[in-house]
Amino acid sequence: MRSVRVFDSTLRDGSQAAGISFSVQDKLNIVSALDDFGVDYIEAGNPGSNPKDLMFFEKAKALSLKHAKLCAFGSTCRHGVPPEQDGNLASLLAAGTEAVAVFGKTWKLHVTEILKISPDENLTIIRSTLRYLTEQGREVIFDAEHYFDGYKNDPEYALSALGAAIEGGAVCLCLCDTNGGCMPWEIEQITAETVKAFPDIAIGIHCHNDTGCAVANSLAAVRAGATHVQGTFTGFGERCGNADLSVVVPDLMLKCQYKTGCTLSSLRNTALKISDISNVHLPGSAPYTGANAFAHKGGMHIDGVMKLPRSFEHVPPEEVGNSRHFLTSEVSGRGTVLPIIQKFAPETTKNSESTARILELLKQKELEGYQYEAAEASFELLVKKALGLSRSFFSVTFFKVSDDVPYPNGHMPSSAIVEIQVGNQSRIAGSVGNGPVNALDLAMREALQNFYPQISQMHLTDYKVRVISTGSATDAAIRVLIDSTDGREVWTTVGVSTDITEASFRALTDSYEYILSKK
Amino acid sequence: MRSVRVFDSTLRDGSQAAGISFSVQDKLNIVSALDDFGVDYIEAGNPGSNPKDLMFFEKAKALSLKHAKLCAFGSTCRHGVPPEQDGNLASLLAAGTEAVAVFGKTWKLHVTEILKISPDENLTIIRSTLRYLTEQGREVIFDAEHYFDGYKNDPEYALSALGAAIEGGAVCLCLCDTNGGCMPWEIEQITAETVKAFPDIAIGIHCHNDTGCAVANSLAAVRAGATHVQGTFTGFGERCGNADLSVVVPDLMLKCQYKTGCTLSSLRNTALKISDISNVHLPGSAPYTGANAFAHKGGMHIDGVMKLPRSFEHVPPEEVGNSRHFLTSEVSGRGTVLPIIQKFAPETTKNSESTARILELLKQKELEGYQYEAAEASFELLVKKALGLSRSFFSVTFFKVSDDVPYPNGHMPSSAIVEIQVGNQSRIAGSVGNGPVNALDLAMREALQNFYPQISQMHLTDYKVRVISTGSATDAAIRVLIDSTDGREVWTTVGVSTDITEASFRALTDSYEYILSKK
Repeated sequence: MRSVRVFDSTLRDGSQAAGISFSVQDKLNIVSALDDFGVDYIEAGNPGSNPKDLMFFEKAKALSLKHAKLCAFGSTCRHGVPPEQDGNLASLLAAGTEAVAVFGKTWKLHVTEILKISPDENLTIIRSTLRYLTEQGREVIFDAEHYFDGYKNDPEYALSALGAAIEGGAVCLCLCDTNGGCMPWEIEQITAETVKAFPDIAIGIHCHNDTGCAVANSLAAVRAGATHVQGTFTGFGERCGNADLSVVVPDLMLKCQYKTGCTLSSLRNTALKISDISNVHLPGSAPYTGANAFAHKGGMHIDGVMKLPRSFEHVPPEEVGNSRHFLTSEVSGRGTVLPIIQKFAPETTKNSESTARILELLKQKELEGYQYEAAEASFELLVKKALGLSRSFFSVTFFKVSDDVPYPNGHMPSSAIVEIQVGNQSRIAGSVGNGPVNALDLAMREALQNFYPQISQMHLTDYKVRVISTGSATDAAIRVLIDSTDGREVWTTVGVSTDITEASFRALTDSYEYILSKK
Repeated sequence: MRSVRVFDSTLRDGSQAAGISFSVQDKLNIVSALDDFGVDYIEAGNPGSNPKDLMFFEKAKALSLKHAKLCAFGSTCRHGVPPEQDGNLASLLAAGTEAVAVFGKTWKLHVTEILKISPDENLTIIRSTLRYLTEQGREVIFDAEHYFDGYKNDPEYALSALGAAIEGGAVCLCLCDTNGGCMPWEIEQITAETVKAFPDIAIGIHCHNDTGCAVANSLAAVRAGATHVQGTFTGFGERCGNADLSVVVPDLMLKCQYKTGCTLSSLRNTALKISDISNVHLPGSAPYTGANAFAHKGGMHIDGVMKLPRSFEHVPPEEVGNSRHFLTSEVSGRGTVLPIIQKFAPETTKNSESTARILELLKQKELEGYQYEAAEASFELLVKKALGLSRSFFSVTFFKVSDDVPYPNGHMPSSAIVEIQVGNQSRIAGSVGNGPVNALDLAMREALQNFYPQISQMHLTDYKVRVISTGSATDAAIRVLIDSTDGREVWTTVGVSTDITEASFRALTDSYEYILSKK
């Protein structure tokens, strides 16, 4: 079985994405997640251009990785500066990694118009930079910047730049579609011609998603002979992002029968962990790893999957650590509800009285505007209560939320006061916030912490609002979804009301009850 | 130049996505956006399975589209029921569209294991369903469900199902990768073989994104001879979504030199408009249309783009209605703003002082989280005020909104009080409502009617809320869109604040001002 090396650049190219910024601790956590998953290289920063990265590499020396090699990234030396006097190269070496990735120009247009040096001078720069790094004991991967544009423009020159890298001692030539503009068939053809020109060295591929083809382009290069694939989890990177390794790796392993060092069964967990650390939401629609990637809707469809999973699923969800998922919706029958009931009452069957009763309850809630497809925590609570398996942890005697404009205290428009009752004790708490829901959340958690200190470990991470019946506008019913986390698990709850504050109150209450019922 | 027909299924397959739900008005708005953009077919619903869709098609009869054909979607008739007695087909015809798309089975496994009928019976069902619809004067597109899996399993049977569709009168055979599991080279090969088998009929392609290859798969099919491409804006659909037409169309036109009826220069606006109506955030990283698709970061890179844009950009951003973007500065150039300024001040040019001033104002508003693509009424107000062409009709001295649970008066949770000032007169009005925004709207209109009786002719028709920055959940900024009507015109206004009540207040205020400034 042919095998492919996986090179992750989440911490380097991924950190170029708008809105992404990693602390040193974030980076260390992502390195272990990637090492656990089994990638071969972890490109973790650009020490020459970013002093924070040098700090990271200092700390990283204490890590002992199971499988991956750490890699630092940098540029070829500047024109007219000998490599041993180039400050960027000195930083690159100071990172102390086993491998380094160095990018150089292979598109003649860039050499003459941007760098404004001669084509030969550029070859000398590549050759001497790589030779110096090799002599210092580094394993050097050469990132051929704008390689495909360069090859289309002047194949001979692009190949001669790769030749210079080989003379300098590169162990791998990584062909980069830097501006992301290539089509899969172009990548395939040019990679094949390059493999033919340099049959004795590993060829790599580095794609961007500007035409929506980064995954397909990476696969096309591998089909043409590349054996090293670069990308990021879960596709982030500048502009439209990089090739998403959480898709490329399962495509290679499950669809193309390539071997890698990665453990596919932990794919979804790895993607979730990295998204969480990056404070980015993993889209429900993410291929293989998204919450909806194996979600089925509609009675006939669900019926088909139950009869024969492969009739509707392109791969078994377990293979990538995901799971089949029947969206709970009005069209669904007992088959959808049953697996959730069985989580708490394993002896329940399709014909149990409780199945019928919970289905009835679900339909009634859906009529009110509830939808549990994305709010399993609320649905589990509903089921547990219907089964008599969950007690009520608290009740709210009253709450009052107001918005005042102009702001009475000068900066916070909203205030909330709430009375919480637990047994025969009660607590009142008040808070101000940046909006009614923020104020209410703060006040309720303040009051609840007196009874349940563990509530301080949770916080809200996302808040969504949808108007669900139209025609009557502001007095239409409103559905609120709230995501919460305790740092390990993320759960979603739902609330519905014609009043947005009350809908939010219901989703908040479910969120607190969910975590309390777990502990 | 070869040409391709574009078939949009945002309103049908797109509406299967988790969390998407369209009102009838939303659907009508999306239909005009798609027609303006220039797609050939708009598949707008499944009247057989969804009675709300039938209502939509009833209203849609009044639309006069410039270019697109409306299309209704349905299934072949049930086994043992003659087409003329099949209720679903009756609904499909009742939709009254020029074109219909009908899906049928082409994978033998599904025929024998899911439908549990004989392979021949399935062919009869396809043939008789299509013949009946053709006889009723419909242009019939046959959606060959699971075609690629079917072909891999038994090419002869898959082809015979297409043959039955041709005998029934289909004008187009659309090959569907229903579970989204195919690789581009498989799509290319099977499509090529199918085109060879049926050279005289249009072949279409319908891809899903379960392997991250929906765009590349659609392109591969077109290269193999398909001339009809299905997809959704902006890729939504069940599980991992459908092929994203906002990427496939520019790839076909700019990268592969195909002709379509679409106006690429309005691509970004179309994507933004449809996302906003769908209440879905268009990711900054979306190829071609995202705010970051042509964003450049880092001095050297920006320097390169300034010297020679094509050195770093795979296509000129203007061609897709986007713009180059040096990070820290906001999007949109003078070209976007000018047409709206000229509505009120026709003599204005690109170089007028007012153009620069309004652009500056717009950038500042965008930084605060405003977005005017779907809220033209608010943008017109902004422009008119900046040009000194609109006076202020009223001011709000203060307002106070509260939510009380349990409800103090037994049934209405929210109350609002507001003081409106016009000239040196002021009025206070109070109201209760089904939620804070409803209460505030009622109180404000109550107070305004004393000065402007015409305000009684307007009312709100829709209300949308979007959380626009994540990470901080309930204290994130919130964008509210409000649709209003006076029975003839419908207009949309926008408000932004960290406080949902205040954001709603701003959108409400704009709505009243907009209608007052018109009369």
